[in-house]
Amino acid sequence: MNYDLELQRLLAEIKTNYLTAVSLDCVIFGFHDGQFKVLLLRWKGTDAWSLPGGRIHHQESLDNAATRTLRDRTGLGEIFLQQFHTFGDVLRYKNFSESETLALLAKGLPDEIGRELTTRVVSVGYYALVEFAHVNPTLDAITDECRWWEIDQIPPLLFDHNEMIVLALKTLRRQLSYQPIGYNLLPEKFTMPDLQQLYETILGQSIDRRNFQKRMLGYGILERLAERKTGGAHKAPYLYRFDKETYQQALEAENLFVG
Amino acid sequence: MNYDLELQRLLAEIKTNYLTAVSLDCVIFGFHDGQFKVLLLRWKGTDAWSLPGGRIHHQESLDNAATRTLRDRTGLGEIFLQQFHTFGDVLRYKNFSESETLALLAKGLPDEIGRELTTRVVSVGYYALVEFAHVNPTLDAITDECRWWEIDQIPPLLFDHNEMIVLALKTLRRQLSYQPIGYNLLPEKFTMPDLQQLYETILGQSIDRRNFQKRMLGYGILERLAERKTGGAHKAPYLYRFDKETYQQALEAENLFVG
Repeated sequence: MNYDLELQRLLAEIKTNYLTAVSLDCVIFGFHDGQFKVLLLRWKGTDAWSLPGGRIHHQESLDNAATRTLRDRTGLGEIFLQQFHTFGDVLRYKNFSESETLALLAKGLPDEIGRELTTRVVSVGYYALVEFAHVNPTLDAITDECRWWEIDQIPPLLFDHNEMIVLALKTLRRQLSYQPIGYNLLPEKFTMPDLQQLYETILGQSIDRRNFQKRMLGYGILERLAERKTGGAHKAPYLYRFDKETYQQALEAENLFVG
Repeated sequence: MNYDLELQRLLAEIKTNYLTAVSLDCVIFGFHDGQFKVLLLRWKGTDAWSLPGGRIHHQESLDNAATRTLRDRTGLGEIFLQQFHTFGDVLRYKNFSESETLALLAKGLPDEIGRELTTRVVSVGYYALVEFAHVNPTLDAITDECRWWEIDQIPPLLFDHNEMIVLALKTLRRQLSYQPIGYNLLPEKFTMPDLQQLYETILGQSIDRRNFQKRMLGYGILERLAERKTGGAHKAPYLYRFDKETYQQALEAENLFVG
């Protein structure tokens, strides 16, 4: 394994072409049929996992760098991607430098690279929402594996990445109280129980059916179709789809205190 | 004016003691009796205004750097301070380099300092809420003036600082839908109309009185006192104070979708 050479080339490239002292990390939440997962990477030659992350080109905005990182890992371009917090503790890399993982990585690595890996970097956290059936997780030069993990089975991660996932989830749950959610996460036509299942999956708890339906219809973002869902054992439920225009308006206007 | 020497010393200190490529800026919102203001600085020898900002020591967390910046400008320690967004556009400094202000600053400044002032920096935005009657705005070495501006009379600011205020205000308004607000912004004992006025001031619009009262009492964070307010022309309204314990719980728990 030409690990040294590859890493050295990568680090040299980072020093030349990217901002130092700032990076970004992406919490990519994946949903499918009541399942809720997060995309993680395994570092080459180790059993250490982390979030996908990236650096920022000198002539690239932070948001564009996040979009690029996401596209590289998932193949998806037009998806919900939102900055949620910047992580600036002095000892963000403490777990990393102390772990067996670093020992493993450092074995045979030149000192210079070891230093670079433990240099303080402030990292901007983004979260994304995707339908994971649409995603083809993609490796890069320093990873051996890139796959979905169930939200309640996340292993101990490198750096402060477990903390990042906790805070991203908190922000996502908060988002439900002022913005609509679901576009691109559900099929084009869906039932009210489908939408409720998505909300319950994100919240990790059940919601009263009637209140939910009343609230959702009150937003004015759903269009009820003439056709009903077929094939179920019960009475066929109505099918809905998002009204793209009012959905977009609700995203921008937000459901504020007075609403 | 020993502007050159002072700036040169400051910039040399920044290079040695602080993280490069990352800074922070504080939107300090001040409230008092229905007024809503923002604290701004005027740069030495210019008529150019900006938000108060700062750099991050190598051995200092981002949050501690923000707390220090705030304390230096306001004298206040224990106040509500929250990170809201990180600004990473490539051309954040475009307005600055193109403005007459830079010409003014650059007149007589060594090239090196001019370059430093227009080097790309990603800046982490924080917002703070204070009772501005408690604050003594404080100058630093490169400012001539530090004072409160009415929220609807903010002048064109340096860098992307107008955009920062807009986004901080949006985040603050959003915050009203999931967290309580008012602690440290109102006197210890206050009336329901006092609290409503604070919400209306932040939202920039009026709120239905009965809905507001019902919602506020529903949070369980208010303690109604035996005494009533005296001295008014109308029927004396009840006095309330925040129950610190349940207020703190509500801050942490947040008023989520299911609530």
